[in-house]
Amino acid sequence: MSASNHPTGQVRKAPENFLDAQGVRAVFAEAGKGRRDFIRNAFAAAVAGTAATSSALAQSRPVVGDGDPAILNLPAHSTGLGQPVVTDGYGKPSKYEANVQRRQSPGLTPTAQASVSFAPLQSLFGIVTPSGLHFERHHQGWWDIDPSKHRLMVNGMVKAPKVFTLDELMRLPSVSRFHFIECGANTGMEWGNVAVPTAQYTHGMLSCSEFTGVPLITLLEMAGADLKGERFVLAEGADGSSMTRTIPMSLIRSGEVLVAYGQNGEMLRPEQGYPLRLVVPGVQGVSWVKYLRRIELGDQPYGTKDENVHYVDLMPDGQHRQYTSIQECKSVVTTPSGGQMLLDKGFYNITGLAWSGRGKVKRVDVSVDGGRNWRTARLESPVLSKCLTRFNIDWVWDGSPAIIQSRAMDDTGYVQPSYKQLRAVRGTRSIYHNNAIQSWQVQANGEVANVQLS
Amino acid sequence: MSASNHPTGQVRKAPENFLDAQGVRAVFAEAGKGRRDFIRNAFAAAVAGTAATSSALAQSRPVVGDGDPAILNLPAHSTGLGQPVVTDGYGKPSKYEANVQRRQSPGLTPTAQASVSFAPLQSLFGIVTPSGLHFERHHQGWWDIDPSKHRLMVNGMVKAPKVFTLDELMRLPSVSRFHFIECGANTGMEWGNVAVPTAQYTHGMLSCSEFTGVPLITLLEMAGADLKGERFVLAEGADGSSMTRTIPMSLIRSGEVLVAYGQNGEMLRPEQGYPLRLVVPGVQGVSWVKYLRRIELGDQPYGTKDENVHYVDLMPDGQHRQYTSIQECKSVVTTPSGGQMLLDKGFYNITGLAWSGRGKVKRVDVSVDGGRNWRTARLESPVLSKCLTRFNIDWVWDGSPAIIQSRAMDDTGYVQPSYKQLRAVRGTRSIYHNNAIQSWQVQANGEVANVQLS
Repeated sequence: MSASNHPTGQVRKAPENFLDAQGVRAVFAEAGKGRRDFIRNAFAAAVAGTAATSSALAQSRPVVGDGDPAILNLPAHSTGLGQPVVTDGYGKPSKYEANVQRRQSPGLTPTAQASVSFAPLQSLFGIVTPSGLHFERHHQGWWDIDPSKHRLMVNGMVKAPKVFTLDELMRLPSVSRFHFIECGANTGMEWGNVAVPTAQYTHGMLSCSEFTGVPLITLLEMAGADLKGERFVLAEGADGSSMTRTIPMSLIRSGEVLVAYGQNGEMLRPEQGYPLRLVVPGVQGVSWVKYLRRIELGDQPYGTKDENVHYVDLMPDGQHRQYTSIQECKSVVTTPSGGQMLLDKGFYNITGLAWSGRGKVKRVDVSVDGGRNWRTARLESPVLSKCLTRFNIDWVWDGSPAIIQSRAMDDTGYVQPSYKQLRAVRGTRSIYHNNAIQSWQVQANGEVANVQLS
Repeated sequence: MSASNHPTGQVRKAPENFLDAQGVRAVFAEAGKGRRDFIRNAFAAAVAGTAATSSALAQSRPVVGDGDPAILNLPAHSTGLGQPVVTDGYGKPSKYEANVQRRQSPGLTPTAQASVSFAPLQSLFGIVTPSGLHFERHHQGWWDIDPSKHRLMVNGMVKAPKVFTLDELMRLPSVSRFHFIECGANTGMEWGNVAVPTAQYTHGMLSCSEFTGVPLITLLEMAGADLKGERFVLAEGADGSSMTRTIPMSLIRSGEVLVAYGQNGEMLRPEQGYPLRLVVPGVQGVSWVKYLRRIELGDQPYGTKDENVHYVDLMPDGQHRQYTSIQECKSVVTTPSGGQMLLDKGFYNITGLAWSGRGKVKRVDVSVDGGRNWRTARLESPVLSKCLTRFNIDWVWDGSPAIIQSRAMDDTGYVQPSYKQLRAVRGTRSIYHNNAIQSWQVQANGEVANVQLS
């Protein structure tokens, strides 16, 4: 499958390299003349502005400017005053990074208020997703709600129903934790053998943040919750979609479900539910109710529209799986990945992300031959529970076609399945919970494409 | 000391609460009437938009709109379509958070190109500093350098000097790590008993990010570095300040010094040295050379202007300490902190940050009585080496004046000193490396001020 198979045909291929094609050719042509010439010429071409007194300059005698090695054409940034501090009290990325954006897949949904924008995984590093690039999934658009008017009610099977202001919530015991959030429909296009072109569109309904808030169990205890017997919580959002989801007490009792106001050090972003969102680690994103306004304690699952009609898994026999909330262990190579291009043969760092809704990632194996041979990748620390884990592994590309895959295992022993294994159980007609191994084909010309192995 | 003692007199007091004074009075007046009334009235006032069918509503019969409990004045965000996805391909904070900014201290330096902006620590959560709020310290202004023209040279005592493009660096083995960066002059105003009003101005030359890049030792090895005998590296930036700093090989050999291109998941921000910055964990910020263009290997410290004239510690006997680069163990309570106001007596979460340039934070103790009694705070995980650690501890305020302090210990056993202990050794005339215990005084009216205990 190639990029032209993308169902919308609207994907703009992001330039992944800093040098354009001409720049790449020039650098490698210079490199071919020998390393010493390469250094001299690349350096002169770059007008890197090294001081004329540097010992390397004296050795390599670059000829720039008027030909006198002592007089360099220094760039403006080495000779003048730059921008002052606090040009903007809230900074933004370089203008040269303007192509690194979250992107909508036009036509995926009928309106842009009930749609998705995908995070540019192929351009990201580490495990923290910049809040400005966090994927979006709205059911009726996003709002910037006045926090002084927002309230959270806790009611249902509680002795003393409560309504909290933001100020009251922020006085309570606070915790901060790193967790991934993944939409249950992430990689959903791939069930039916449709290979969308880039990691942004295959896996980009995935982000990871440090969340800060109050454990939900604290609020239930303050309200005198009756926790004897089987109990479930209904979480309700304040936007027009009236999103409501059932959360099992098993997760809440552990203290890991949070009523969060903070994300990546600052208040939640409006697209992520400002001023309050439920954080349900390991569980699909739809349960992380945004604009959270109400928590109700009950004694059975609520069976809401988004639990009975949506977010159910269509099985081969025509039945649906319901309440399949946990995001199973999964991984994806983000570089090299579809839409990127390898500049030349030689050394590359293969990097990607792994995660599990059941705990920590224990191991990630990487194959460059379509799954015949596997090597174990290096995991960057920290490796945290229900959090993204960054992996890296060395690779020397010999210039022949290659198929790159990653396969994650979590600390329960669960191993990420192949498409063949997954489809044997779940068929091909689901939308949700596709955690199969992703394959990227490196072509002889260096272009990387999404392929599906049968 | 009160806010009026701030040397510039220009500090705008940021509103720290979501309710204004009138809102606070109203909520607490309602609360005084009893919890049930409070719930009913606060809920009605907030027009929180809970669906009319909710059981809590049925119980509490709020009277809003035309008085019929079944007809609610629902807010616009509960009834209409919101904003579409990708309103901006790169998101930004809520308009209600516009006061959370990095701020310059006017008059601190003669020009805004050689100045500082402080991170708003009192408004931040967790350990990750949002890149848009990362503190700035420029010596000749910041630049947005074209990465396709930027080069990094490695020269000096190496067999094969090298010049790297960004594309070449990004093919090399990559690591991602969380580290704090603190300016050596952070808290510098406090040496001489000047108490600036807020945590932003006392401790705000401090930030923490996940950095991604190539270990510097890898580049030195590629260049055939001669590492026999004592060795030092000179790092040089490409901006007009020609910032040059000596880095000892002991840090580089360990693999922890990075040539970084990534910060918090994306490319470095221009104010932080885009496209390349040196990351020197545990060491004062000036050594984290921005716009990094050259690494030279030598056999002695370089004694540059920013090592001989600046960034030296003036001792009581008139001598200077030089090459005092490691940021010793330190901590600060960020809430409650100067400029904030406690709304009422009762429960509060005391929270703050601790860090050490020598390793991990082992313990943080908190006092609310000016250091007579201490309790050990809860550390949020992960606790990482040379990284910020978030601590939290419960406190019930009885309404009487209190002095809040935190005291950190690192895994070397070093304990953060009091001002008395620090000044006994270092005097009061230094600018750099003040890591003393910070005191915040809570006044009977709830206002919090910076005080220095003798």
